[in-house]
Amino acid sequence: MRLVRYGRPGKEKPGLIDDEGKLRDLSGVIGDVDAAALAPKSLRKLEKIAQSSLPLVRGNPRFGVPVARVSKFICIGLNYSDHAAEAGMAAPKEPIVFLKAISALSGPDDAVMMPQGAKKMDWEVELGIVIGSRAQYVSEADAHKYVAGYTVVNDVSEREYQLERGGQWTKGKSFDTFGPVGPWLVTAEDIYDVQDLDLYLDVNGKRMQTGNTSTMIFSVAQIVSYLSKLMTLEPGDVIATGTPPGVGMGRKPQRFLKKGDVMRLGIAGLGEQQQEVIAWKATK
Amino acid sequence: MRLVRYGRPGKEKPGLIDDEGKLRDLSGVIGDVDAAALAPKSLRKLEKIAQSSLPLVRGNPRFGVPVARVSKFICIGLNYSDHAAEAGMAAPKEPIVFLKAISALSGPDDAVMMPQGAKKMDWEVELGIVIGSRAQYVSEADAHKYVAGYTVVNDVSEREYQLERGGQWTKGKSFDTFGPVGPWLVTAEDIYDVQDLDLYLDVNGKRMQTGNTSTMIFSVAQIVSYLSKLMTLEPGDVIATGTPPGVGMGRKPQRFLKKGDVMRLGIAGLGEQQQEVIAWKATK
Repeated sequence: MRLVRYGRPGKEKPGLIDDEGKLRDLSGVIGDVDAAALAPKSLRKLEKIAQSSLPLVRGNPRFGVPVARVSKFICIGLNYSDHAAEAGMAAPKEPIVFLKAISALSGPDDAVMMPQGAKKMDWEVELGIVIGSRAQYVSEADAHKYVAGYTVVNDVSEREYQLERGGQWTKGKSFDTFGPVGPWLVTAEDIYDVQDLDLYLDVNGKRMQTGNTSTMIFSVAQIVSYLSKLMTLEPGDVIATGTPPGVGMGRKPQRFLKKGDVMRLGIAGLGEQQQEVIAWKATK
Repeated sequence: MRLVRYGRPGKEKPGLIDDEGKLRDLSGVIGDVDAAALAPKSLRKLEKIAQSSLPLVRGNPRFGVPVARVSKFICIGLNYSDHAAEAGMAAPKEPIVFLKAISALSGPDDAVMMPQGAKKMDWEVELGIVIGSRAQYVSEADAHKYVAGYTVVNDVSEREYQLERGGQWTKGKSFDTFGPVGPWLVTAEDIYDVQDLDLYLDVNGKRMQTGNTSTMIFSVAQIVSYLSKLMTLEPGDVIATGTPPGVGMGRKPQRFLKKGDVMRLGIAGLGEQQQEVIAWKATK
């Protein structure tokens, strides 16, 4: 099942993409794609709905973040061995964990804004885990029970802010629009093997990142179990699981984003995002 | 004005502490102490209410976090020059920024839970800033306009998780109950000089931390301005501004928290918190 939230920013409605790829409205069934909707029981109920009974949505509305009221936006750093190498850092012995500000969340095709004076904006395609049930001290074997589904995340970064301005990566990870998520939340049972998904990211039509989740250092199950011992994972929390090689910082020569650049990125079965880089502007 | 939220976890009601120190109910006036209530216009309106017209609350209810629906829990690291020295780290040239997980938020007197197997739990009394209006690229001169008020934060930490388990402090800062906030949100106009407030923290009645906000490396105005260039600050966001000397990690010999220890901490004019350290237990 492919769940979405569609409509203007802040006014999104819940929907799903049917088997023919058509957008149908779910607002007669659930209030939103939120913690309640993501509970295992609720997802089972949604799976049973005859998709053809749901109203078709006309036009091509914008997609928002496919989860409402995300309370934590957790990221795993350096989780692909070949990306760690290109970043010039040792492969970590334990997952590297940082948080992006919730205010960085952005629709999958919304423009990405450049901070004033930023010179080192970079891209990172990542598999996103969406939590479905509260998780505290869960084992790796049980971890999948706490996952509602998966999505695409672009962990947009400003490398100077992240690495050259005094400690803690959050600083370069949290600008508004630095967290495009979506287009879909694909429920876990629709993914045959989450550790064998191709990822890619293009800039202006040129392939920059290519990878497969099979080369993750820490698997989805390991990440969920590990994090659940550091903090309570709550329904709707989004976990970005690290990026494969090909980020701008790791290229020779380095290649950072400029205004007008267009990123297109996706993961097999999870859909595709596209963002244009624009100058910062005040938002409400 | 001293705003509070009182009642059982998740069921808190808004209230205020009147000039005689008595708790009065505000739920007939505002829905909660949330983004809407913290807006400058709303605060001005609340200030005009005759406190004696508000119902007195009987008994001694629990206090919750004095802000509802916090969306970001931002922390500044090493912001007192003498604390940086005791931590064995250089005073930062720019503010060190990290995020605590929202799920770490906890009432000011709620028990603090020890993660399973944790050996290096530590305390940090900090001045908390509560944001009242959206802030994007604000100047230091204008920063105060975006602050609703101030509160006490205990930035509870697990030093092994923070520093010895592979990068990024968030890991040792985000466990459930590691973020007691309150008891009160004191509105900014009731604080004569936020850069001259005494802070203290006792463990089992013994004074451990003593400090004054006059020795902050980066002032409240500098912090708000700085952060507003890294991310949008939103009403209800809480910013913990760093801790003065005397944390357990910096003592000789080091002194970490054990089950049964009681922390008592406060800031002049902002009230006092008290937490007992208990073993972790599953929560809902």
